[in-house]
Amino acid sequence: MKIYDTQTAPNPRRVRMFLAEKGVSAEYIQVDLKGGENLSPQMLSKNPMGKLPILELDDGTCISESDAICAYIEAAFPNPPLCGESAIEKGVVAMWQRRVDLCLMLPVVHCFQHTTGYFSDRMTPVGDYGVVAGKDAVKFLDVLDKQLADSTYIAGDNFSIADIVALCAIDFARVVKIRIGEEQTHLQRWYKLVSGRQSANA
Amino acid sequence: MKIYDTQTAPNPRRVRMFLAEKGVSAEYIQVDLKGGENLSPQMLSKNPMGKLPILELDDGTCISESDAICAYIEAAFPNPPLCGESAIEKGVVAMWQRRVDLCLMLPVVHCFQHTTGYFSDRMTPVGDYGVVAGKDAVKFLDVLDKQLADSTYIAGDNFSIADIVALCAIDFARVVKIRIGEEQTHLQRWYKLVSGRQSANA
Repeated sequence: MKIYDTQTAPNPRRVRMFLAEKGVSAEYIQVDLKGGENLSPQMLSKNPMGKLPILELDDGTCISESDAICAYIEAAFPNPPLCGESAIEKGVVAMWQRRVDLCLMLPVVHCFQHTTGYFSDRMTPVGDYGVVAGKDAVKFLDVLDKQLADSTYIAGDNFSIADIVALCAIDFARVVKIRIGEEQTHLQRWYKLVSGRQSANA
Repeated sequence: MKIYDTQTAPNPRRVRMFLAEKGVSAEYIQVDLKGGENLSPQMLSKNPMGKLPILELDDGTCISESDAICAYIEAAFPNPPLCGESAIEKGVVAMWQRRVDLCLMLPVVHCFQHTTGYFSDRMTPVGDYGVVAGKDAVKFLDVLDKQLADSTYIAGDNFSIADIVALCAIDFARVVKIRIGEEQTHLQRWYKLVSGRQSANA
């Protein structure tokens, strides 16, 4: 399998980390996101939304959207499970994955895009909204800190995709100067634990 | 199982429709979202994010976030499958579910919240961003129309969760005057097909 990738962007990293946790190798092809190579006719034929990463299977099927790529990988390579095993675990992991995605990753990305104008050639940045999004992301770090007071990992006793998305979002958040607070000791403990995994280097 | 629900909001509807497709019944409890009943201590103990819907299982476990509730239901009640069966199908359905969610449902909801100030007691509306979000949603209707030129349902030959999310988003979009264009004949064909399902009344 091939992955069309960009090393510096947060969403491709979650797919690399997910694959590394599964011990599955892939051929990574770097695409120049800032230069707009993802919007070339060749890349748009693989993903009409013009986003990265894209998984291309040997039969030519292309799957884009990071969490959809992870859904495919989880089904094709079930071990170790990263999205829960029982129905309740699957629901709880999906709940935290979604919260981290919508309340942290997306606001961080929106804060970056809307306050810096990084993609102003392909979207309309609204600075005031970027500021609001950044504040929302900061607020959610408190939710995570509280959850991690009683829980080794975000969705419970087991490492999961929710931890991967959170790590990628928190590391990327440095570009907009959002960091874990010194008083958020549970989140600090979790960050050290999760960023120490070999997959975090993927 | 109990579902804490609000009849008029688009996300609770997708859970009701998903359950109706599975033929699974639940006890629905109406919560006054506009009045802020979802922010009461009792409701925050079930979902600290203060959002609806919430699934409460008989053992007291609470799962929130619509797509996490659907992930639980899909695992607990596999038939009929609404999220794909093979690994590739699961990936393709998740891809379209995600696209519909991030490029249609979320922008429609943002357009509504940021342009009307409906939740200005609990968030900071940025009108200009609401307008941009609405334009993004309109653009995505073209993507769906193109996809449906060659495909009975959004993710292929089978009805899936992607169709449920799209129907709920498109019906809700009327509140911000976003509608399927007359020239979008494939999307019109699909809308008639999907809104004619019994589950659409759930």
